[in-house]
Amino acid sequence: MLTTMDLTATQWSTVYNVLSFGLISMLATTVYTLVSTNRVLPKYRNALVLSSMVTFIAGYHYIRIFDSFHAASMVEGSVGKVITAGHPDAFNEGYRYVDWILTVPLLLVEVIAVLALARETSKSLITRLVPASAAMIALGYPGEISAVQGTKILYGVLSTIPFLYILYILFVELSKSLDRQPEGVAATVGRLRLLLVASWGVYPIAYLLPIINADGAASTGAYVGRQVGYTIADILAKCVWGLTLVKIARMKSIAEGMKDDH
Amino acid sequence: MLTTMDLTATQWSTVYNVLSFGLISMLATTVYTLVSTNRVLPKYRNALVLSSMVTFIAGYHYIRIFDSFHAASMVEGSVGKVITAGHPDAFNEGYRYVDWILTVPLLLVEVIAVLALARETSKSLITRLVPASAAMIALGYPGEISAVQGTKILYGVLSTIPFLYILYILFVELSKSLDRQPEGVAATVGRLRLLLVASWGVYPIAYLLPIINADGAASTGAYVGRQVGYTIADILAKCVWGLTLVKIARMKSIAEGMKDDH
Repeated sequence: MLTTMDLTATQWSTVYNVLSFGLISMLATTVYTLVSTNRVLPKYRNALVLSSMVTFIAGYHYIRIFDSFHAASMVEGSVGKVITAGHPDAFNEGYRYVDWILTVPLLLVEVIAVLALARETSKSLITRLVPASAAMIALGYPGEISAVQGTKILYGVLSTIPFLYILYILFVELSKSLDRQPEGVAATVGRLRLLLVASWGVYPIAYLLPIINADGAASTGAYVGRQVGYTIADILAKCVWGLTLVKIARMKSIAEGMKDDH
Repeated sequence: MLTTMDLTATQWSTVYNVLSFGLISMLATTVYTLVSTNRVLPKYRNALVLSSMVTFIAGYHYIRIFDSFHAASMVEGSVGKVITAGHPDAFNEGYRYVDWILTVPLLLVEVIAVLALARETSKSLITRLVPASAAMIALGYPGEISAVQGTKILYGVLSTIPFLYILYILFVELSKSLDRQPEGVAATVGRLRLLLVASWGVYPIAYLLPIINADGAASTGAYVGRQVGYTIADILAKCVWGLTLVKIARMKSIAEGMKDDH
């Protein structure tokens, strides 16, 4: 059975354009962070390469998501009909989770890499952050694809547990390692954590929109809101995050004697 | 005659998404290992470039496999019908063997290259590993495409002979050359061999799934399991393998005097 959703022409264009915006944000950031490796000391380059890989992987998935949304659509006059299930060209939301399971652990590895902590400290933080972030994504997926409100809430709550653990690691454990960072870096890392809370915090709101507005016309708004919310959160969490890492790596490089004119 | 297989919508999506996951894992690893050549001594760079070529070749084939699966599919309601034969758009599994005949010998050359053994030792190992791995793939193919159980088992057994020979070379012959490796490298090579057994061991299991479950609905599960199994094995054998080689090359470079901060 073919399942479709009727958006207004404006709603349809909003999703279409925001997906395109996400796509090129990822690709442009990929090139910028990769080229910026030349502007930092060698020890910070791997963090920027990892950041570039995150936006590369996300850019690939935005190409897929964009093409999938286009292929799933039949715009007729003022109605943007989107096939949501029951057809090989149905809009595939699975791409987002495939993307996140790869990129979210990498985002956390990046931030540890750019701090260039002692090897043992880095290893200890990474071995706790990576499995927690993978668990967070994996637990969210069953709730995302379910149409049952109780299931959505259950997996939303389960997914929040590793998220809180990640916040604990970043705010409590990581703080202990920040004393030896050069001036300005501790403040930037503080802003980075706020960016993380602000951007990662958009995901659960977008996830919950179909619950908040579960009926009729309202759910069209929830559908559009989810696409826009996920895309903006991705841009904050991956592009703005990557550019902030470039800034941190530059500050640390200059503090450690790299010429300011690079 | 058109041969098709009816998957459930969930099974169809699982194959679709796992193929996309394989595709981008290969491409991202290609860029990462290529960029990482700057972080190791020149003598280890060729091993990383070879690893990058392996994931590049595999990434190309995953693009083909993904597109072929999409073109072969006719999802109707809750059924994902996949054309498996008798049509130019039938799902082409031959891509996997074309990929393996190119990449599997290269994977073995990589590991010998990264160890930077004496020239004679390298040459002797490579001239035995490359033909054995090519024979392993070539002997598997007739069993893969056959629907006859006896043929599948026969070629499965024939293909296992060169596989066991490869294990013998890697576990017995190679061990003799590991005495002069810096501390930590021998342990990592040990883990690399375990990774090889664990990932290459998934291929025969995926190969045998149609034999284990040969009838009716069960064979749909076997079909999905084979696609998922081959893809995960490819990611372990090519991406995780390549990242482990980067790690070995880094350890050896640092042991030989390269600055730790690269």
